[in-house]
Amino acid sequence: MSRERLYLFDTTLRDGAQTQGVDFSVEDKRLIAGLLDELGVDYIEGGYPGANPTDTSFFGERPALKRAKFTAFGMTKRAGRSASNDPGLAAILDADTDAVCLVAKSWDFHVRVALGVTNEENLESIEDSVKAVAAKGREPMIDCEHFFDGYKANRAYALSCIRTALDAGARWAVLCDTNGGTLPDEVERIVGEVIASGVPGDRLGIHAHNDTENAVANSLAAIRAGVRQVQGTLNGLGERCGNANIVSLIPTLLLKKEYADRFEIAVSLERLKTLTHVSRTLDEILNRAPNRYAPYVGENAFASKAGIHVSAILKDPATYEHVPPECVGNQRKIAVSDQAGRSNILAALEEAGIKIDPKDSRVQRLLDEVKEREFLGYSYDGAGASFELLARRLLGEVPEYFVIESFRVLVERRYNAAGEFVTVSEATVKVNVDADLLISVGEGNGPVNALDQALRKDLGKYSPYIEDLRLADFKVRILTSGTEAITRVMIESADGKGNRWFTVGVSPNIVDASFQALVDSITYKLLRDGAPAPVKPAKKMEVRV
Amino acid sequence: MSRERLYLFDTTLRDGAQTQGVDFSVEDKRLIAGLLDELGVDYIEGGYPGANPTDTSFFGERPALKRAKFTAFGMTKRAGRSASNDPGLAAILDADTDAVCLVAKSWDFHVRVALGVTNEENLESIEDSVKAVAAKGREPMIDCEHFFDGYKANRAYALSCIRTALDAGARWAVLCDTNGGTLPDEVERIVGEVIASGVPGDRLGIHAHNDTENAVANSLAAIRAGVRQVQGTLNGLGERCGNANIVSLIPTLLLKKEYADRFEIAVSLERLKTLTHVSRTLDEILNRAPNRYAPYVGENAFASKAGIHVSAILKDPATYEHVPPECVGNQRKIAVSDQAGRSNILAALEEAGIKIDPKDSRVQRLLDEVKEREFLGYSYDGAGASFELLARRLLGEVPEYFVIESFRVLVERRYNAAGEFVTVSEATVKVNVDADLLISVGEGNGPVNALDQALRKDLGKYSPYIEDLRLADFKVRILTSGTEAITRVMIESADGKGNRWFTVGVSPNIVDASFQALVDSITYKLLRDGAPAPVKPAKKMEVRV
Repeated sequence: MSRERLYLFDTTLRDGAQTQGVDFSVEDKRLIAGLLDELGVDYIEGGYPGANPTDTSFFGERPALKRAKFTAFGMTKRAGRSASNDPGLAAILDADTDAVCLVAKSWDFHVRVALGVTNEENLESIEDSVKAVAAKGREPMIDCEHFFDGYKANRAYALSCIRTALDAGARWAVLCDTNGGTLPDEVERIVGEVIASGVPGDRLGIHAHNDTENAVANSLAAIRAGVRQVQGTLNGLGERCGNANIVSLIPTLLLKKEYADRFEIAVSLERLKTLTHVSRTLDEILNRAPNRYAPYVGENAFASKAGIHVSAILKDPATYEHVPPECVGNQRKIAVSDQAGRSNILAALEEAGIKIDPKDSRVQRLLDEVKEREFLGYSYDGAGASFELLARRLLGEVPEYFVIESFRVLVERRYNAAGEFVTVSEATVKVNVDADLLISVGEGNGPVNALDQALRKDLGKYSPYIEDLRLADFKVRILTSGTEAITRVMIESADGKGNRWFTVGVSPNIVDASFQALVDSITYKLLRDGAPAPVKPAKKMEVRV
Repeated sequence: MSRERLYLFDTTLRDGAQTQGVDFSVEDKRLIAGLLDELGVDYIEGGYPGANPTDTSFFGERPALKRAKFTAFGMTKRAGRSASNDPGLAAILDADTDAVCLVAKSWDFHVRVALGVTNEENLESIEDSVKAVAAKGREPMIDCEHFFDGYKANRAYALSCIRTALDAGARWAVLCDTNGGTLPDEVERIVGEVIASGVPGDRLGIHAHNDTENAVANSLAAIRAGVRQVQGTLNGLGERCGNANIVSLIPTLLLKKEYADRFEIAVSLERLKTLTHVSRTLDEILNRAPNRYAPYVGENAFASKAGIHVSAILKDPATYEHVPPECVGNQRKIAVSDQAGRSNILAALEEAGIKIDPKDSRVQRLLDEVKEREFLGYSYDGAGASFELLARRLLGEVPEYFVIESFRVLVERRYNAAGEFVTVSEATVKVNVDADLLISVGEGNGPVNALDQALRKDLGKYSPYIEDLRLADFKVRILTSGTEAITRVMIESADGKGNRWFTVGVSPNIVDASFQALVDSITYKLLRDGAPAPVKPAKKMEVRV
């Protein structure tokens, strides 16, 4: 049986940006668009060009996407002016995108109370705006705001908004449950009635919110009833309680027979294996702890605590797992067995190009070391270079290029000679290379920057190897609460050849944690670029990294 | 039309105790049982007497409940021995409870693989166990484990498990989606078929898990199809991704017409107003941050960030709220942010209890200041205390209690006298109170901790006001990439009276950003607790906060 095409529309960068506490930078938006494109969504809604400086800048330079349609969001033109004379619409049409999604009121109460225009003026705005988008050669679609509430209040008017949009050339009319209060059976019934009224389901979309904890169910209900576009966000970001979570929807659509047999989506089973990574990378970008209990991708999604469950799982995983965790790139978590951990370690070693016999006892030692360090707060998930160093050190492949004898960082807030209140940061580092003691001082705009400057100022014969090294990003996560906090620092480094690598440091002291990650970054660069081993051993062997 | 009775069965203390990272004490269990009883659930499943010391102790002294039925959980008797001769069942029957819920396999695959007994032996265990519970004068019920998977694999056997339990005298047969992989339409269809086969819906329950993010929807689907008992947990605690969240279900059942018109539950509209409190108290007991995005009860469940939404809400809340927040004891939250307009600022001022004429020119000045600061990286979204200080400073309501003359922080990594490589952090702060210069030194496990210690060590006459101040959480976000990074620090503070407030600092220097947030936190505490203004002005007026 041939399957019907179902389209995924991601709005992480637009509706997800409405999440309280979420504030994407332009760089964040580029990274996330790349992740979504790789994953295989059909549309990436990037934001609202002209509405704020971030979005204007993001749309100013089109992200390089392989297949997803880059989409701008905005409002239909205001009543009382023509589409060509509406500055808001002009900013949207000026952006270089494949598609444009315009929000339009479809609840007469809102047309009256929020817009203060007549029902007819609103329909005219829809028609003219869709035509203006089409005339620019972009794929037009209309988000019917408050569609379900509007339908319950004035069925005929809500339907006329859809028909007006589609007749004017919109590819999609998206049914939005803007306030999030509609329940799944209502969604299913209303979508069914809309289609029965003559609107083709393959031109309808669903946009659900999670205010009753039913956003995913509402999306599935709409699909069952006939819509063929589904909107959502990564990890269910979005205003108030969030949007439909595509990280939960995608595996259900691909792995549950009822959907997999009927529908085809652009995400492949192969890409589905990156889903856990994509979800956690988004949280990394937002610098927040991933939801350990998230469906499919959470750390505990395949974890068993109850003894009776564990013993049954060891007999046959199908007894307590609704899908195999590896399908979504997640893993089983069972307290009594480190089988999963071991295969993970072997996979990571292979990825790093380290050849080792799986039966080598050092694999177990590495696993033990990783587990112990992860218990202390290290995370090697996002710090491949630090993992590779840990493994290669265990195999005796990492020379001790340099030894840090000591460092000192001073941050001072005081009046300077000009009478200005300034903050200065200064660092001193003593480092031992080939048994020579080198002392360097660096200044920076913060303690870590000063330390970085001092550390890299003079590494003797290794200096040429790190000339093109630069710190691309620096992230701090507080792992425990309050003043006793354990700090984890992740550093992303880059070099002149376009290589990028990630290192990690953990300490109650943020400067110390940063120092560990910096030293790992430099060591990794020296190792990869084949720097020679030191000719004389350093006097003191201590360097805790 | 008379409404049908729908029963709520809470399993927070049993299935919720299976949550990874959750470990209830006996005292926790007593507190939570009291909360649930006050809220108005019908059954409180307290745990598994005899299975672990906590549960044995908790059941050893029956909690004082006003109306909920106290329920013990356990397994049906083992095959090959009589109910009266099964030590597991004996421990359950010895506990002083109103009801007993026994789990029984209803999937033949599990009977074979996990139990290793015949289908007939399993039915015999169900029958004998139910009869033993009834004979003790307790209300018996059976949890049909893996019911939906079992039904799909062997319909006749799954149904015979239900019939055996009910014929033996069980008040309820609960249909469990143990692996959590069943979707809402399947639940609805299968429950409908079970009832059509002759089993009365008012003797059936539903027990859903959230592995596809559909636990709430599955519960609602089962209710629509006819079950009259629904099981769930507070805040959706539970093994893996959790159980159905009764905190989301209860308001839907009471506030959504489709359910409120048809069903009667034991939670009153009056008690519903305590729901937000109940949900957050559970998190307090677990010592974890409440989910800000939780449906109905989350801090952001009624929060709006987009300017167009805010202006509409101020015209009429029904425009963007699916239910009134006060019904569930929650409140509307208007965010001040990048996306905000004048209406957000006015609403935020009102929320902070600041009275000002909307036409006052200072409103525009405050809006300009907020926008400028947000461009620099400040975020007032999550830092209400810093926003309130900013506004009150503009209105001239914040005395300059103290002035920081200078501070100095030193972080040193070196060998100590014992030859160990250690990192030490030390801070010196000069602060001016009533024109007296106070100098304090503090040590800490990191630079911010040391600065915090020094800053709070001596604030002269203000010291008594900050004795009970403590830092509850500390978050760091790097806003731009690389070594020029702008750092935003958010601090959550708490005092002895249970107040919590949030402050923010931004700087390229993490120590400086932390310092700003610390100073705001202390100033906010002094202002709120009515500390007296300084009697003499400080000599130097510079303090950048």
